[in-house]
Amino acid sequence: MGTRELGLPERVPSAGELPASVTVWEVGPRDGLQNEKAIVPVEVKLEFLDRLAGAGLTTLEATSFVHPKWVPQLADAEQLLARLDRREGVRYPVLVPNEKGLNRALDAGVEHIAIFASATETFARKNLNSSLDEQFAMFEPVVTRAREAGLDVRGYLSMCFGDPWEGVVPAKQVAAAGRRLLDMGCSQLSLGDTIGVATAGQVENLIGLFGDVGTLAVHFHDTYGQALANTLAALRCGVSTVDASAGGLGGCPYAESATGNLATEDLVWMLEGLGVATGVDLDALVGASVWMAGQLGRPSPSRVVAALCPPGPRPGPGAPPPGAPEQKQS
Amino acid sequence: MGTRELGLPERVPSAGELPASVTVWEVGPRDGLQNEKAIVPVEVKLEFLDRLAGAGLTTLEATSFVHPKWVPQLADAEQLLARLDRREGVRYPVLVPNEKGLNRALDAGVEHIAIFASATETFARKNLNSSLDEQFAMFEPVVTRAREAGLDVRGYLSMCFGDPWEGVVPAKQVAAAGRRLLDMGCSQLSLGDTIGVATAGQVENLIGLFGDVGTLAVHFHDTYGQALANTLAALRCGVSTVDASAGGLGGCPYAESATGNLATEDLVWMLEGLGVATGVDLDALVGASVWMAGQLGRPSPSRVVAALCPPGPRPGPGAPPPGAPEQKQS
Repeated sequence: MGTRELGLPERVPSAGELPASVTVWEVGPRDGLQNEKAIVPVEVKLEFLDRLAGAGLTTLEATSFVHPKWVPQLADAEQLLARLDRREGVRYPVLVPNEKGLNRALDAGVEHIAIFASATETFARKNLNSSLDEQFAMFEPVVTRAREAGLDVRGYLSMCFGDPWEGVVPAKQVAAAGRRLLDMGCSQLSLGDTIGVATAGQVENLIGLFGDVGTLAVHFHDTYGQALANTLAALRCGVSTVDASAGGLGGCPYAESATGNLATEDLVWMLEGLGVATGVDLDALVGASVWMAGQLGRPSPSRVVAALCPPGPRPGPGAPPPGAPEQKQS
Repeated sequence: MGTRELGLPERVPSAGELPASVTVWEVGPRDGLQNEKAIVPVEVKLEFLDRLAGAGLTTLEATSFVHPKWVPQLADAEQLLARLDRREGVRYPVLVPNEKGLNRALDAGVEHIAIFASATETFARKNLNSSLDEQFAMFEPVVTRAREAGLDVRGYLSMCFGDPWEGVVPAKQVAAAGRRLLDMGCSQLSLGDTIGVATAGQVENLIGLFGDVGTLAVHFHDTYGQALANTLAALRCGVSTVDASAGGLGGCPYAESATGNLATEDLVWMLEGLGVATGVDLDALVGASVWMAGQLGRPSPSRVVAALCPPGPRPGPGAPPPGAPEQKQS
């Protein structure tokens, strides 16, 4: 039965150049849960984080200090961090929107924050009520103070490829905005395709405008089905940090409010097959996502999770194995 | 607003070598509908085919001459072909399982057939009740007679990467089986990942075992979310015929019976973005799939269809454009 029994693909490296290992930046507990309708109890979040760490994920974006008025789903950030059982070798970055958020993060003793900027004027205005320039002016003291306090800072850049109001976003504009985040002290820049419209050539083109791919991460949404193909393109450019959400948390693609985060399992399946090390135990990860889906009361939108753990009653002995097609020919 | 208003991605060719154009081999009317629970009236199938041709697709696998006992969904093959309004420049291949099926196809006046072989012993036995060798012996006279009658013959090869009973399928075994189909007179070989487990390196490796990529097509299922990434890998190897199913017909990934055909719209979105010509009008194609989804009474599993035409009431004036995220920060 080969590796199929273990729920893993055959391992065949790609002929193209790929990084030897990839850091999966797990955003499910933050980007995932903030986009779920349900407000999840803090105990469930804590167990979810623990299961994800147990599956071998080493970067867990744990929560956000955005004002609870905007994201009630993560209003328990302080509580969660106070009760978090931090594992050795695991980072727990938190999202910080502004100086007030930074104060809360510092009070909570976090070591790693992320800020969330826009690559377009319109989204900066819609999301932050500021212009592009004003947003950077707002972030500058956040990053400076965080760095002075010894914190590591990641910069998210959203709307890097398309913007629902502005349409196509010029790559040079995105690269300039990204450069400002790096220059102000972000150690990593996560390029986000917030509305999921990018295709592989756009991805290569934008990454090519940055000198040092070592500081880059990619954050793709699967709204148009492109997330994994775009990830493959980014890996070929040398990017080795990829954002993903366990179980595809954060929006079912069939729901109207879909955000369609790339599912960590679908990413890990590809990386396993390509022989790119992630340190993630896929079975344990699927287990964590199935458990979380049970808490949310709906199936996981991850294709790998659905394939390995189809919802509904388990087949009895003698039933065809998972993936077995029905007989089609006479 | 750039091209977003038209529902198309920005066009940025990939730095990697890609074919200038791709032939989309549309399998929705056959592979899609045979895996749907509903039995669709012949009038609906005819209108679907007409809408797909109207969207610019030039290869429409129209139906199958498999015994109606096995595939009642396509029991109307003769009726459909008799009433089909063939468009100039469009091919309408049909699936033929054996000599009886070929007789029916010849009687119906088809010009192009496809046969469906297995790359593994177990699936040959399960699907055709024959060994690997016996299946080729069975297909040989089908292909020979079809060729003598002036028909073009495509060979499908299924289970090219993984098999639910045998696990990983050795690439050399697949290449040898494919070679037999080409040698017996198939003009094209479609390499099928029937259970959707393949990753990009496996795809490159298998394609590399064939001398002439011009005779190859790829047929990916999205069961593990890999279909489009694998397609990108195949395109980089020079493959220029890609099988896909309009609207992702043939199985919702969340259903237990999921087959998860690659959705034609998701493929075309990528190819449009990469500047690879397909001749397909994406808006018209989405329209055809939405119409068909209405006939089936369930939303299309295509991500592009869901993104461009979300189910539910249309937003009124002043509503945020499609893809607009909610405000997240204070």
